Amino acid sequence: MTGDTQRSTAAPHAAWLPDGAFAALGSRRVVVAGDGALTGTVAEEVAAATARFGGAFSRLEVGDAVADAELVLTLSPAETSPAASSPADHGEDTDESFRFTREAGAVVVQARTDAGLLRGLFHVVRLGEAAFDGPDADETHAPATDLRMLDHWDNVDVHPTMGQVERGYSGGSIFYDNGFVRSDLSRVERYARLLAAVGINRVAINNVNVHEHEAHLLTDDLGDVVRIAAVFRRWGIRVHLSVSFASPILLGGLGTSDPLDQDVAHWWVRAAARVWDAIPDFGGFVVKADSEGQPGPFAYGRTHADGANMLAAAVEPYDGLIHWRAFVYNHRQDWRDRSTDRARAAFDHFHPLDGTFSDNVIVQVKYGPLDFQVREPVSPVLAAMPHTRIALELQITQEYTGQQKHAVYLGPQWSQILGFRFWEPTGRDGGSPTVADLATGRGKAAEDPGTGTWRKPAGGFAAVSNVGDDEFWTGHPFAQANLYAYGRLCWDPTLDPATLLDEWVGLTFPGAPDAVRQAVHTVLDRSWETYEQYTAPLGVGFMVRPGHHYGPDVDGYEYTPWGTYHFADRDGIGVDRTVRTGTGYAGQYPSPWRETYESLSTCPDELLLFFHHVPYTHVLHSGTTVIQHIYDTHFEGVERVEAMIAAWSDVSTLVDPRLSERVAERFAEQLHSATEWRDQISAYFLRKSGIPDELGRTIY
Amino acid sequence: MTGDTQRSTAAPHAAWLPDGAFAALGSRRVVVAGDGALTGTVAEEVAAATARFGGAFSRLEVGDAVADAELVLTLSPAETSPAASSPADHGEDTDESFRFTREAGAVVVQARTDAGLLRGLFHVVRLGEAAFDGPDADETHAPATDLRMLDHWDNVDVHPTMGQVERGYSGGSIFYDNGFVRSDLSRVERYARLLAAVGINRVAINNVNVHEHEAHLLTDDLGDVVRIAAVFRRWGIRVHLSVSFASPILLGGLGTSDPLDQDVAHWWVRAAARVWDAIPDFGGFVVKADSEGQPGPFAYGRTHADGANMLAAAVEPYDGLIHWRAFVYNHRQDWRDRSTDRARAAFDHFHPLDGTFSDNVIVQVKYGPLDFQVREPVSPVLAAMPHTRIALELQITQEYTGQQKHAVYLGPQWSQILGFRFWEPTGRDGGSPTVADLATGRGKAAEDPGTGTWRKPAGGFAAVSNVGDDEFWTGHPFAQANLYAYGRLCWDPTLDPATLLDEWVGLTFPGAPDAVRQAVHTVLDRSWETYEQYTAPLGVGFMVRPGHHYGPDVDGYEYTPWGTYHFADRDGIGVDRTVRTGTGYAGQYPSPWRETYESLSTCPDELLLFFHHVPYTHVLHSGTTVIQHIYDTHFEGVERVEAMIAAWSDVSTLVDPRLSERVAERFAEQLHSATEWRDQISAYFLRKSGIPDELGRTIY
Repeated sequence: MTGDTQRSTAAPHAAWLPDGAFAALGSRRVVVAGDGALTGTVAEEVAAATARFGGAFSRLEVGDAVADAELVLTLSPAETSPAASSPADHGEDTDESFRFTREAGAVVVQARTDAGLLRGLFHVVRLGEAAFDGPDADETHAPATDLRMLDHWDNVDVHPTMGQVERGYSGGSIFYDNGFVRSDLSRVERYARLLAAVGINRVAINNVNVHEHEAHLLTDDLGDVVRIAAVFRRWGIRVHLSVSFASPILLGGLGTSDPLDQDVAHWWVRAAARVWDAIPDFGGFVVKADSEGQPGPFAYGRTHADGANMLAAAVEPYDGLIHWRAFVYNHRQDWRDRSTDRARAAFDHFHPLDGTFSDNVIVQVKYGPLDFQVREPVSPVLAAMPHTRIALELQITQEYTGQQKHAVYLGPQWSQILGFRFWEPTGRDGGSPTVADLATGRGKAAEDPGTGTWRKPAGGFAAVSNVGDDEFWTGHPFAQANLYAYGRLCWDPTLDPATLLDEWVGLTFPGAPDAVRQAVHTVLDRSWETYEQYTAPLGVGFMVRPGHHYGPDVDGYEYTPWGTYHFADRDGIGVDRTVRTGTGYAGQYPSPWRETYESLSTCPDELLLFFHHVPYTHVLHSGTTVIQHIYDTHFEGVERVEAMIAAWSDVSTLVDPRLSERVAERFAEQLHSATEWRDQISAYFLRKSGIPDELGRTIY
Repeated sequence: MTGDTQRSTAAPHAAWLPDGAFAALGSRRVVVAGDGALTGTVAEEVAAATARFGGAFSRLEVGDAVADAELVLTLSPAETSPAASSPADHGEDTDESFRFTREAGAVVVQARTDAGLLRGLFHVVRLGEAAFDGPDADETHAPATDLRMLDHWDNVDVHPTMGQVERGYSGGSIFYDNGFVRSDLSRVERYARLLAAVGINRVAINNVNVHEHEAHLLTDDLGDVVRIAAVFRRWGIRVHLSVSFASPILLGGLGTSDPLDQDVAHWWVRAAARVWDAIPDFGGFVVKADSEGQPGPFAYGRTHADGANMLAAAVEPYDGLIHWRAFVYNHRQDWRDRSTDRARAAFDHFHPLDGTFSDNVIVQVKYGPLDFQVREPVSPVLAAMPHTRIALELQITQEYTGQQKHAVYLGPQWSQILGFRFWEPTGRDGGSPTVADLATGRGKAAEDPGTGTWRKPAGGFAAVSNVGDDEFWTGHPFAQANLYAYGRLCWDPTLDPATLLDEWVGLTFPGAPDAVRQAVHTVLDRSWETYEQYTAPLGVGFMVRPGHHYGPDVDGYEYTPWGTYHFADRDGIGVDRTVRTGTGYAGQYPSPWRETYESLSTCPDELLLFFHHVPYTHVLHSGTTVIQHIYDTHFEGVERVEAMIAAWSDVSTLVDPRLSERVAERFAEQLHSATEWRDQISAYFLRKSGIPDELGRTIY
């Protein structure tokens, strides 16, 4: 549901690219040199900035003599060739690296491809004055992965229950308006520029739940996709489509979509040929199959490898990719059946298929085994498929984390996930691969982690976008920071989320007093933890209103077919997922985590109820009981929201009043909602446990 | 929501007027005599029936000599005049009585008005052969009230969440299709005939929640109402409209709808004049004001009497009526506040206004203080306004009683409500007025019940229709019996529900073996009680899924603003509505009920949790504990559904196979749903109370 987010006709907010962000670059003498479409984009940006801030701009040929330039952005002389940046070139050069040198305050950015040059430009923009200050430097920057993708859950038609954007909390779609692709794509152009500035290079433009009308983007409505792709192309971004596995039936009039049926395979071959004919740099297809009602290979007794590989063969001639989602589980589970565990499903479905997927299939795995909860263990599927290209899927849109009404900065969550290590330290220097390594095929994943040789190239990153046609793009202005941080972490997963917040503040509020930066930190640094405090406790998840997933409803999913339960009774709560007495999910992890999660004495507090069913009187490692922890964190969570609001109110007059007004309105709702969470959760557990709060606070 | 009820293109089911229902009458020599439009309708019915079954039909003048007729349907010679049946005649003759005489097997039905003659015709149809058999007879039949009304909750536009028919479980609307009044009203004609046969004489044709488009039926779209009224008029039925209290703003362009503003009053005077000019026998307006978001007089600091009386003055010249709903409560209540009690609201709002409403205002009161639950105490408002015309409102559409997927015959519930007496026996013959007496102004309500002189005429009956464009009219074919019973109970509230079921079976399945009748009794006689058994226990109500109200969700409304709570904790459950320690609701009843409900020792078991919060170990009058009662009734409820299904399956081949198929499909869902109710309710209370089932049955 789109909720009540305002659809504004005001000019969209500049986000992290206001004019002021270009002040340092724009006031200097800048040279741009080289061919290629994206070099043209770089030149346009520089020309506009220097015109605005009194600098000078020259466009030269590569290798021309450069006199007294303060910044040179140039393709590398030797390797530069038009072919290297031509999107039509199969087996093309995807190098986006650039070299940054500073000598006596003069900066040169050099890249082998025009895509690299564009990344280098925005690197300089991000640095601001710091690009030109400081000691001499010679750095090479390259992305951790070529696959830095955003998935849009936008529908062409307004869906009767899900609206224009499924799980969208930012108004309508920037692509579609009530059944049509927009004729005016200027908002998409602004969006592409914002994405380019944070390093995103692939966008899937429609919902993975592919409804009737949307399925036709692959065929009849391909012309609209061509238009959108043309906009993104100017910013080094390729377009992908979500497709229905039943397309041969829906669109082709066939009687089956069996992946082993030759007519089906040939239908896809022809469909792919038409798409790449029209869009030579098209990225590929995203598929949600056999999941929550979407069609898939199971209907024909085929495996997901059968399904994915058939599509992969159709797109292989164009270096096309198949992003195949691992989000497969039984959504018609019987709540009475405690032996079935939705958390096990992705591993049980996909682990046996490791090594059977084609080279251009990427299995896209949600970070946790359930569904983007505020806290889940990292999905064991990420460790279970060394012979498969795995992408880590995150969710920028705040479906379960406050729906862009609550200020929740997800950078710290993502950073924690990206840095998670499945194995004990091993290898040459005592490390072991992080999740980021597994998704990028770099770092320790380039070595043997003891479980086999890891597949390269890897699958990179994907995430659900949080953007809509809202004036501030993201409903809550502070939710822009999440999109910003996601893009930056894709480029370099080791970046510090607090530093990224500084980058975001510096770009978004150029020239604002440092108090603004400090207030943003006070509001956002621990906001993920704060949200966790006042919602479902100790990793148990959900407890949200069914359907829209906003606001508390402790038993909302407890007796439903969705497989997300907490099993609270008068004595205790939690899901026993141990091997010894529970569903066995803990056994899907390699050592040492299987043992760590299995044991009550070692399981981390924050995941206790995900792995164990314990009495309310169980004492946590923190020293408090489960029930007292529930009371304490819920009261503290609300207090923290009050502190966030106070901190922001001190600086709210120092920024754009429209932005301040929007933030204030969201804060009011966050405080109201957090209070509801506190009171409902506390009341529920007091009524159930009968154990009073040690501090005697009011519980209803 | 309209749910998944099939929208069929098949010819609508004949319901209780199949050709076979006319066999006895149609095979005889019949004379119809008199003028008036409805006499014409009678003559057409007789002509068709006699043509079909080989009888003879003559149309004569009143008073003409009649030779060897077996049935004479005639207006009474003396009083007959065209004026008496002209709908344009203000202060018209609303007499619908008829005299039925049988002498040596020859039957004469005589009526003063053609409306009475139409009622008499269907009396003969209902009796079948019995009309002509048996000893000589001379009976006069008259309805208990002139106000026998159906309210439709049909929307012109398909509402985004409520669909074409709000709380409709029978497909689309027979009046509207996706934004338009149907051009083909033949289905409405069939409906009107069915209603005439059970005695309904007024129909409000649109939802009391009046949305934007629907508001225009009063003005721009009045021509459509004219068309619908013309269809109903042929069957002695008047049309009413639900109107928005904000119409002067919405439609008139005024800045206010303040009932004391002269421009507002004049706007309504002109609106009423246009309506009655177009539809001289128009019935009046139905208003849901200051309720669940609908506009009303509170916005201007005015009372509901101010609002109703202003409208009443506008419609008074035409003998028009204002049905003003008493369903007024705070639907944004804070669940933390246990002192506020939604059950009190209607009494608190309306009791102080008793005696201040105009003569043509009818205050329409839902039978219980909450909202059409399977079990509620009878609303004390019905006893609290002796100087006000009160209508009893029932709900035929099964919003909270299985949504026409469950076979639930509501006749017994209504009969119990209609026969409820608020006061100790008093007056000349030791009786006291029943609810039916209060709503009809007859019986004991025509005497002084000790609380003042009762206002006459009274307000009659209203109920929400359960009909849609479904092939069987009502989704579940057996739900037809509810519409049938409602109409008949309006005519005579003392009729026995089981006898009405016999009437319904006899008409609906003419010529079927008696086993069919017996099976219908086995299925329906105790079905209301069965539904109560497997849903919310002991009068506590709700426990349904929020929004659509189908299926169990024990805590679904527990922490919401809707004011419908059960307060279950680990020790007990129920709402303390006593005067001594609770919300004081029990004190809204006259003696002896205020004392009966107040005391745990006298409160009836079936309402225990409506009035009291008790431990799970509290022993009921039945001798069992509350918790064991919950287990026992839920298991027995499902067993009873199984028995219902078995009983019907024995006879299912003896009726129309399409009907059997539909019944079988609904039974499957009822069993599935009842099992869910049993298991969820049992699991919820076992987890909360920790008290095991004495019989050791499986609880999850």
